Amino acid sequence: MKAAQYLGDSKFGVVASTPISPNAGEVSLDVGYVGICGTDMHIYHGAMDHRVCPPSVIGHEMSGTVREVGAGVEGFRAGDKVVVRPLDHCGVCPACDAGNTHICHNLNFMGIDSSGALQNSWTVKARTLHKLPDHIDLRTGAIIEPLAVACHDVARARVKSGEDIVILGGGPIGQLIAQVAKAEGANVLISEINETRLKFAEDNNIDTINPAKEDIESVVMERTKGKGADVVFEVAGVAPAVKAMTEIAAVRGRICIVAIHSQPAEVDLFKFFWRELELVGARVYEATDYDKAIDLIATGKLDVEPFFTGEFTLDQVGDAFHALDTNPTGMKYIINCGASR
Amino acid sequence: MKAAQYLGDSKFGVVASTPISPNAGEVSLDVGYVGICGTDMHIYHGAMDHRVCPPSVIGHEMSGTVREVGAGVEGFRAGDKVVVRPLDHCGVCPACDAGNTHICHNLNFMGIDSSGALQNSWTVKARTLHKLPDHIDLRTGAIIEPLAVACHDVARARVKSGEDIVILGGGPIGQLIAQVAKAEGANVLISEINETRLKFAEDNNIDTINPAKEDIESVVMERTKGKGADVVFEVAGVAPAVKAMTEIAAVRGRICIVAIHSQPAEVDLFKFFWRELELVGARVYEATDYDKAIDLIATGKLDVEPFFTGEFTLDQVGDAFHALDTNPTGMKYIINCGASR
Repeated sequence: MKAAQYLGDSKFGVVASTPISPNAGEVSLDVGYVGICGTDMHIYHGAMDHRVCPPSVIGHEMSGTVREVGAGVEGFRAGDKVVVRPLDHCGVCPACDAGNTHICHNLNFMGIDSSGALQNSWTVKARTLHKLPDHIDLRTGAIIEPLAVACHDVARARVKSGEDIVILGGGPIGQLIAQVAKAEGANVLISEINETRLKFAEDNNIDTINPAKEDIESVVMERTKGKGADVVFEVAGVAPAVKAMTEIAAVRGRICIVAIHSQPAEVDLFKFFWRELELVGARVYEATDYDKAIDLIATGKLDVEPFFTGEFTLDQVGDAFHALDTNPTGMKYIINCGASR
Repeated sequence: MKAAQYLGDSKFGVVASTPISPNAGEVSLDVGYVGICGTDMHIYHGAMDHRVCPPSVIGHEMSGTVREVGAGVEGFRAGDKVVVRPLDHCGVCPACDAGNTHICHNLNFMGIDSSGALQNSWTVKARTLHKLPDHIDLRTGAIIEPLAVACHDVARARVKSGEDIVILGGGPIGQLIAQVAKAEGANVLISEINETRLKFAEDNNIDTINPAKEDIESVVMERTKGKGADVVFEVAGVAPAVKAMTEIAAVRGRICIVAIHSQPAEVDLFKFFWRELELVGARVYEATDYDKAIDLIATGKLDVEPFFTGEFTLDQVGDAFHALDTNPTGMKYIINCGASR
């Protein structure tokens, strides 16, 4: 058995590991695939060492099969295909009290704040698991986590069929939001300045605009006959997107903040008053978002195959991070951690 | 018959006027009382001459009685006590299409964009009228409009009984929001730096904090046992309030933007992501807000008497504006326009 350890300073080491037997309420998993996400890249660049405390095993976008269940665990048995919703809440803070366990004041984000999935065997609380239908292969299962992020964003923004949606930013999450919103029956436009990402969106049947070449407000107003966008997703995290989000929103439009803004941003609050706009933050996901993501793939409503950019083995984890680091327009790089079906 | 005309540059003149007979769908009113609001003060200072086009009759917080109804008007007859909801919508823009006529793209705000209530007789569309129960006196009726603003803000923020509410700014609208939220059963705290306004709140059974003397985040967190405010109303329109609004909000807290921010403001968007906050703009009111405001007064749930600071006659309208201008902590100055009951 092996585990990949993040050592700090963009370095990984692969070490021998021993599977941890599941305690009561826990399940040990044979890890199938692990995806690399933007947060993992922040860790790779050393920006989150205070939370990760290297050396440590990271990775939270995963699929696998159940190896062994601990005492008292019901609903899972050896061999089941599963994905982990990597959030462990405290159960006693005001957020948990109000039922918002996914944004618990003391949230343990597994794979960041505690040991993660980049190993052959991972032992987790059974309550973090979602079953994967048998006909979904584990490789596809590795995209459930980021897809659940997109489902959460779309749910938070209350996207409805027939609505006009603009997504500011065409990275992996922006593109997944586009696919989920389109599956909901919305009219979707992605705004992005990178030509590779624009082509990815178009290849996957999403309309695009390059705001460096065209005036986004004019384009959106023309497209919506003067109404504006019913929903805007701010996934870019840059000042021009924060400016655009209020310019293109319809009266009572909803703006969903998905990007992580490390600094306060200049927001046109007058537009919030004048057009009664709504801004809603979205972070990670809830159980229902995982259910939705699994359903979208299981029923064939969504084809996530185009999102897979590259695949590496656990021994090659450093190469995988380097590959994504040098190909920032790549979508999803995944690590094959051994379990296959 | 007389009308008070705003002449520009903080000047008013009182001129003779002839009542306008109501056309089909219109009603002519004998004006009872007209309140002066912050927007009227902006007009007085010349900041809105481009919309008001002096000389013109302003005033939009009013009560009165029906003098004459035009052809086709049903539900109103001479002598009825009424208030005007001073919004005239186009009926054909995307906002009207979506049912949001109060924020119509081409909204005519009566008393600003067209002739207002500071006269003995005002002729308006019947669809702008709400009936006032006979036991509400016309003087009290003049506060229905700003109270409807507060009802709209509370409705937009979805305030529920038992929730912790913080209102940033203790001017007339902030104080009315406090009273409406308290009537809904919420725990209300007003944050204000002016001692006169703090005393007004306390005299009317609202808890207060002076953020110039105490740390508002600590006070709110202590008051809510670490949860934060379920709802924050930003009614101050200043940078410290915009900073505080995200600091004191609970997980999934709602922040309602009531103040008019003429410049973009620095907003902590990270907190929107991290705590899944919601920002919601609120502008004017809908018919249901007028119904609610009338009901709150009619049923005695709210006592608005303390809000009346001073009363003037139509001939003294210049004195009234000057009085409010030199007493910025005053609450509601009203003009007696003649009709009495």
